Amino acid sequence: MSKCISGKIVYDGIAVGKIYYYGVKASVVKRSKIDDANAEIERYKKARDQAIDELNDIYEKALVEVGEANAAIFETHAMLLDDDDYNDSVYNIIETQMVNAEYAVATTADNFAKMFSEMEDEYFRARSADMIDISERVIRVLENRKEDEGLTSPSIVIAENLAPSETVQLDKSCLLGFVTHQGSVNSHTAILARAMNIPALVEIEIDPEWNGKMGIIDGNEGIFIVDPTSQELDKYNKKLLEQKEKQQLLQQYKGKETISKSGKKIKLFANIGNVSDVAAALENDAEGIGLFRSEFLYLGTDDYPSEEEQFQAYKTVAEMMAGKLVVIRTLDIGADKQVDYFDLEKEDNPAMGLRAIRLCLTRPEIFKTQLRALIRASAYGNIAIMYPMIISVDEVRRIKDLVEEVKKELDAAGVGYGKFSQGIMIETPASAVISDLLAKEVDFFSIGTNDLIQYTLAADRQNPKLELFTDTHHEAVLRLIKMAIDNGHKEGIWVGICGELGADTTLTSRFLEMGIDELSVSSSFLLKVRRQVIEGD
Amino acid sequence: MSKCISGKIVYDGIAVGKIYYYGVKASVVKRSKIDDANAEIERYKKARDQAIDELNDIYEKALVEVGEANAAIFETHAMLLDDDDYNDSVYNIIETQMVNAEYAVATTADNFAKMFSEMEDEYFRARSADMIDISERVIRVLENRKEDEGLTSPSIVIAENLAPSETVQLDKSCLLGFVTHQGSVNSHTAILARAMNIPALVEIEIDPEWNGKMGIIDGNEGIFIVDPTSQELDKYNKKLLEQKEKQQLLQQYKGKETISKSGKKIKLFANIGNVSDVAAALENDAEGIGLFRSEFLYLGTDDYPSEEEQFQAYKTVAEMMAGKLVVIRTLDIGADKQVDYFDLEKEDNPAMGLRAIRLCLTRPEIFKTQLRALIRASAYGNIAIMYPMIISVDEVRRIKDLVEEVKKELDAAGVGYGKFSQGIMIETPASAVISDLLAKEVDFFSIGTNDLIQYTLAADRQNPKLELFTDTHHEAVLRLIKMAIDNGHKEGIWVGICGELGADTTLTSRFLEMGIDELSVSSSFLLKVRRQVIEGD
Repeated sequence: MSKCISGKIVYDGIAVGKIYYYGVKASVVKRSKIDDANAEIERYKKARDQAIDELNDIYEKALVEVGEANAAIFETHAMLLDDDDYNDSVYNIIETQMVNAEYAVATTADNFAKMFSEMEDEYFRARSADMIDISERVIRVLENRKEDEGLTSPSIVIAENLAPSETVQLDKSCLLGFVTHQGSVNSHTAILARAMNIPALVEIEIDPEWNGKMGIIDGNEGIFIVDPTSQELDKYNKKLLEQKEKQQLLQQYKGKETISKSGKKIKLFANIGNVSDVAAALENDAEGIGLFRSEFLYLGTDDYPSEEEQFQAYKTVAEMMAGKLVVIRTLDIGADKQVDYFDLEKEDNPAMGLRAIRLCLTRPEIFKTQLRALIRASAYGNIAIMYPMIISVDEVRRIKDLVEEVKKELDAAGVGYGKFSQGIMIETPASAVISDLLAKEVDFFSIGTNDLIQYTLAADRQNPKLELFTDTHHEAVLRLIKMAIDNGHKEGIWVGICGELGADTTLTSRFLEMGIDELSVSSSFLLKVRRQVIEGD
Repeated sequence: MSKCISGKIVYDGIAVGKIYYYGVKASVVKRSKIDDANAEIERYKKARDQAIDELNDIYEKALVEVGEANAAIFETHAMLLDDDDYNDSVYNIIETQMVNAEYAVATTADNFAKMFSEMEDEYFRARSADMIDISERVIRVLENRKEDEGLTSPSIVIAENLAPSETVQLDKSCLLGFVTHQGSVNSHTAILARAMNIPALVEIEIDPEWNGKMGIIDGNEGIFIVDPTSQELDKYNKKLLEQKEKQQLLQQYKGKETISKSGKKIKLFANIGNVSDVAAALENDAEGIGLFRSEFLYLGTDDYPSEEEQFQAYKTVAEMMAGKLVVIRTLDIGADKQVDYFDLEKEDNPAMGLRAIRLCLTRPEIFKTQLRALIRASAYGNIAIMYPMIISVDEVRRIKDLVEEVKKELDAAGVGYGKFSQGIMIETPASAVISDLLAKEVDFFSIGTNDLIQYTLAADRQNPKLELFTDTHHEAVLRLIKMAIDNGHKEGIWVGICGELGADTTLTSRFLEMGIDELSVSSSFLLKVRRQVIEGD
């Protein structure tokens, strides 16, 4: 018998495939009394040695696949498992409490993790998670469980919740759809689902036991089916085929110009998050890059990226786009995007905190390194620099002064650069309301609807409790967008949208009426939006 | 020699007086070895008994002064000190570790506090702070230190930082001025300083040793003087006199109408936080109450206030104001105002969270209790109900439906009520931008500039790191205020300001030009604002 559960639709579509449970790996360890401490210690030693063997194997494999720097962690783990303090603690707990090895390992892990987590030094604090990792491996061996190999084949990912940091680690090519218990229609997972064009449901109670079973997401009806019958499989495989055919139909819009029936030509650009996204953008006929998020250079590393590293990334994208416009947004961290080495203080309301351009203006040396890399890259293509979270004319002038400084430094050093334009994100209510003043200072506006919505409505878009109060089509937001377009045009600059609303085809005709010049969307939406602009239905 | 330190001005003016250090009370306890455990235990017992005696004395005194309910905590503390588990732990630490009693008490306090803080039950969790309190008392006795009597005479309060909860506990009549290390010009302490019209400085490194010495705040120059010379004292006492004379001069504006030179009559109303604030409002010639914050009924209690309790408070203020308008704002908790029994979930960005009207609309029974009390009170004066954090027409309609429900229920029960008007706060960008639509639904607008500024600029007003980016006179904010005034007038409703900008006399003439109808300010500012409206300089 199949099991059918209703949830809330975050993104529509059909997915059929094996279920992969992305869960907190910590197993619940039972404490049980033993009779023979020596035998239990031997049992532990055998499991530990097997765990060390596993780690050495993974290390060798990783060395080849991902290189020394990324493989090193597995060697470290193997060494930690061989550590005397760690092992003595396990022996001692088994002997004094006459308890099972699983419990002794789990307790040792907790104690060591706690100790490390309280240390001042960042390096030692990071060891805390390692203690849990290695102990879970030993417990797994003790319990004769096989290793979870991660997401290695196309699957429906189910989870209690998915943090942005977790979705980042998932192999995107293996994602068929998401089903989570927590999360909201405005969460990062939802944004990812929309960006990847895969179905997603929330508010479904997850059972880890479903892992490995077949599943079906009906994102049109809001239903998740576990262990489907063969009739259900047939029905949904047919629907899946129809869905794919529909997507196929969009292919006819490749190579066409993005012009509305009334003759308005729209720049249809792609949003990308790193260099490798350019392929999908080109494949889907992007006419330029409307938003290149530079954060990928800063996230997931241990230190500030060098000017050279940044330069290479910007240059590569500029070259690949071969003369088409590439709008690169300067660093937008803070809020929910945290980077350890920036050493940011905890804030009560990080979404309204020291983030993005505010951080760059308070740390001009970091900002100038990025500006240097961007300006140098302008010699290799058609580059525009875009500044996020602007609220005042004064900020723009300070940035432009820094840009002039950098140009002078490059001139003095005899380093060449090309022409480039400069624009700002309109994503705060302030910037929309004074867009007449800001338009005099820059070459273009790009409206960031995600943030603009949350600040205008004073409603955190990641807070699932606020869905009732969050209308992404709110009249105030649409009026602010119109205001920015009108004010931009009065000063003769182009105005685009790079937020999620840009891909919302129910609004495309309204944006066209407002006079929008550019729409920048995820690559998977490019052809859908082009179709909407051309057909206008 | 006097010591003179420069800081950042939060509010100007002069203060001369004794310094009171408001610090974290936990003394650093040293661990030292002892030789005679029995003698040390006797030493502890003596100190404990004295602490219990002190607590019983305080209890008796409090019984008379503040009543049984508020005094009970001291009886509880005395009982906790007599608890066997607590005492056994102290004895045990002294005996097994051969350490001093101070250390044994501090360790016991930490252990018990930690244990309590991890309990599920709210009641036991609250005991955690009590364990620290009673232990500090015993340690104080052991160390032969006198009890800190709190702020009992007019003083300059110095502190590392002051949380809203702490400023609330300070006896306002004893506050001459604030000097803190942390805090910003937009912090709660700053708002309190402005509301009370007392000087305040931040960014001054505090030395607890200054406690009890004389101090001078020169809030005009941003200087704090510790241990002033007699010349300095003379100089500043003279300045203080001039300041008082200037304030005296304002008295001539009592009884005058608040009319500008161009003949515009302004309603000059007072902001109040509880019933006892009405006295100061009347004394300073308030023409009505423009903002009665109803939170005081909910904060600092253990459970929801009853309908009757609320009714009595609203009725009293309505009666005291004798027919003058009293605008009462419905519950505005959440964000930085937390109330335990509401059991609110922790939010990542509470300032943009489930707060104020959002909370009321998701808990209609609590909201309806308040509405019933408000509507009943309308029989006793001229009452207006004001709703905070509105972003949509739909919310206003839902509220009005609830009001109709309540009226029907009161009719059915034969409970009388009078006429009352209904208005909304304009404090989100959304509400200002769609104020044309909202004006059709309500009787008045009151602009909450504090929140309007923070959402428009996407800058948490409590975050000191953002001062560089927070311009309270930002053009976008002023335009949104103008928009709300114009749209209100088009529908024939009055528009006021009840946020802090309303008391900013550098903006008064600008607000008059915009056509503002009402300004509601702290009582201490009423005459200053009236002077500004009348003289217009």
